[in-house]
Amino acid sequence: MTATRAHRAVLDAEVLRAAALLRPDEDAVQVAARAAWTVLVEPGDGVAGTLIAAYGPVEALELAMSDSSLLPDIGDAKAMSEARARWRPRADPRAVADALHGCREVGGRMLLPGDPDWPIALDDLGPHAPIALWVRGGAEALTADRSVSIVGARAATPYGETAAAELAGDLAADGTVVVSGGAYGIDGAAHRAALGAGGQTVAFLAGGVDRAYPIGHQQLFDRIRGNGAVLSEVPCGAAPTKWRFLQRNRLIAAAGLATVVVEAGWRSGSLNTAGHASSLGRPLGAVPGPISSAASAGCHRLLREYDAICVTNAEEVRELWGGGGRVLDPTPAEDPDRRRLLDALSDRTPLTPEELARRTGLPTERVRGLLGLLGVEGAARSHDSGWIGQTRR
Amino acid sequence: MTATRAHRAVLDAEVLRAAALLRPDEDAVQVAARAAWTVLVEPGDGVAGTLIAAYGPVEALELAMSDSSLLPDIGDAKAMSEARARWRPRADPRAVADALHGCREVGGRMLLPGDPDWPIALDDLGPHAPIALWVRGGAEALTADRSVSIVGARAATPYGETAAAELAGDLAADGTVVVSGGAYGIDGAAHRAALGAGGQTVAFLAGGVDRAYPIGHQQLFDRIRGNGAVLSEVPCGAAPTKWRFLQRNRLIAAAGLATVVVEAGWRSGSLNTAGHASSLGRPLGAVPGPISSAASAGCHRLLREYDAICVTNAEEVRELWGGGGRVLDPTPAEDPDRRRLLDALSDRTPLTPEELARRTGLPTERVRGLLGLLGVEGAARSHDSGWIGQTRR
Repeated sequence: MTATRAHRAVLDAEVLRAAALLRPDEDAVQVAARAAWTVLVEPGDGVAGTLIAAYGPVEALELAMSDSSLLPDIGDAKAMSEARARWRPRADPRAVADALHGCREVGGRMLLPGDPDWPIALDDLGPHAPIALWVRGGAEALTADRSVSIVGARAATPYGETAAAELAGDLAADGTVVVSGGAYGIDGAAHRAALGAGGQTVAFLAGGVDRAYPIGHQQLFDRIRGNGAVLSEVPCGAAPTKWRFLQRNRLIAAAGLATVVVEAGWRSGSLNTAGHASSLGRPLGAVPGPISSAASAGCHRLLREYDAICVTNAEEVRELWGGGGRVLDPTPAEDPDRRRLLDALSDRTPLTPEELARRTGLPTERVRGLLGLLGVEGAARSHDSGWIGQTRR
Repeated sequence: MTATRAHRAVLDAEVLRAAALLRPDEDAVQVAARAAWTVLVEPGDGVAGTLIAAYGPVEALELAMSDSSLLPDIGDAKAMSEARARWRPRADPRAVADALHGCREVGGRMLLPGDPDWPIALDDLGPHAPIALWVRGGAEALTADRSVSIVGARAATPYGETAAAELAGDLAADGTVVVSGGAYGIDGAAHRAALGAGGQTVAFLAGGVDRAYPIGHQQLFDRIRGNGAVLSEVPCGAAPTKWRFLQRNRLIAAAGLATVVVEAGWRSGSLNTAGHASSLGRPLGAVPGPISSAASAGCHRLLREYDAICVTNAEEVRELWGGGGRVLDPTPAEDPDRRRLLDALSDRTPLTPEELARRTGLPTERVRGLLGLLGVEGAARSHDSGWIGQTRR
């Protein structure tokens, strides 16, 4: 059968040429199909993701552009027809060609699933994973061993910016890639500190990577591209919209081993990023601040309502992913006898078990047993003829 | 048999007379025996507590002062002999008489288990519960419906003192008794704020209630006695020692429905109070502060290591005991579709389920189902022909 394929309405000759220029020596139809999808859909379109996962980008496009009711793996016919209704108005081959040319014109690349430097952490988004990524800079920062997402308010205070800078600088200095959103405030402070420490940083944008948004970070993005990457799942020329900002946050949350919210007001968009981290099962940290500061109210909310872990320095941030993750069981109630013995131990003067029994009112056998346990925990150690406390109470 | 009872060496005629003066119309031997125990033991002596619980204070004293090996309910003969060894050097009838007279001379009272105003919350300390309490002021504050323990560093910052004052003032104004330790810094700020709000406050001291410690709080203790009470389990004349400070903390932790640490350094004694609260299963709150402040490092440690709950205002403190207590299960991972729908909802513009399906890429049926759930949760509500978001994200 040589009936014209419906997808050729989108993947016309100009589009295929543009695709071949951007990614030479590859199947231009495959490349062009993914580029087309980034033009057709809003970020995170789960129907598109499911269709592409089932059929590949070319056949999925064919199904999207045709009226075929044969969808053996996509059960929801209504969802499919709604999806076609929202995609087709955007199925303009000129827009797809512009996206491909535009990327090449700014020296960018198109990153596709399966590429060696495709960030597989984003695959945890399942059907809502990006279909492709438009990148400027070196994408290898996305596949580094360690990465952390540092986010927070645009309306940051000096306290928040300092905290973000200290955390990001310390983490970047030991090779952890700092992931953020390139916004004013906390994001900017984190990116700058990472660069200042000689480390790498990655910025996920809501709009196309051809345009600096916010405009005041144009030079920052230039520097980031030299030591990391600027990425987007929407093509060059696409504007940053509210929806795209919110969806971009899911990429930030997915890209880091953990997400840390440094400073956030009660309604801050970074709480949205925290929500994505929770949905993905990524560890979530929040930096506390003065209870008198509205700029920290969102972080305190995360500690109370989102099970975020209180982090106060870079080491505690590392523990978010390196320490085996969130302990699910609450700290068991402390043995009161253990508490009494800890109270009675001196950090300087060795005390015998008998002396400790006298001080605590506990039987000597009990004291000996507890001392053994404390010794194993490193909270006490024997010295000369007695025991010394090793714990900061 | 008319052999002289061993306890009469301690409960001599002078002691019985002093006991009768302090608590007339009662069994002077019983009163005197408990007074004697507070002279014999250091606070929290578990062997003494167990003995008194089994035999009553008089017979327990008899067993302590004699060499009887008949201890059918106390299995540990070695513990008993060690206990006798530490008690007997202190078994001086003059010290007991002085304790009773001294209390009466400062207009104080002796509070005994079974008294209508005995604070039964302290009974949770089991064998380590106080044997008696020496009180100045009105002990009814100890049996109020609601009480909260507010503690923290002596070396408090203006931030910490303000936070303590705001919490304590707000809580005291609605009838919650503020319990603390009378120390400089956070304790003092909490007591003062409770008094300033016209509320009641209670101070547990490490030494005898005849002596203001610290001396700079003499006037504060005068005021507290007018609107609450000053208490100790050690008799008048007893000095505040390190052990007694630590043990006093267990009374503070037990007396409140919850304990809140407002500001604390890494090694602060208020972490000891927090440890007692945990041992007792009392809810524990901690007030966060700047991560740059060493004075808040202990509070952050409580949030990280002791499962303390982040509290930032009086309402969140009330929730510690009023809200059903600590949730033991971690927040379950959020449904990603729910997150997408929350992102798509507007707080101002009603959107139809179809429109929401289009924006989110979710099937309309799924959107309708989620909207129903969000409606029940109060996170969205239907309006005109659509739905509006009700959630602060």
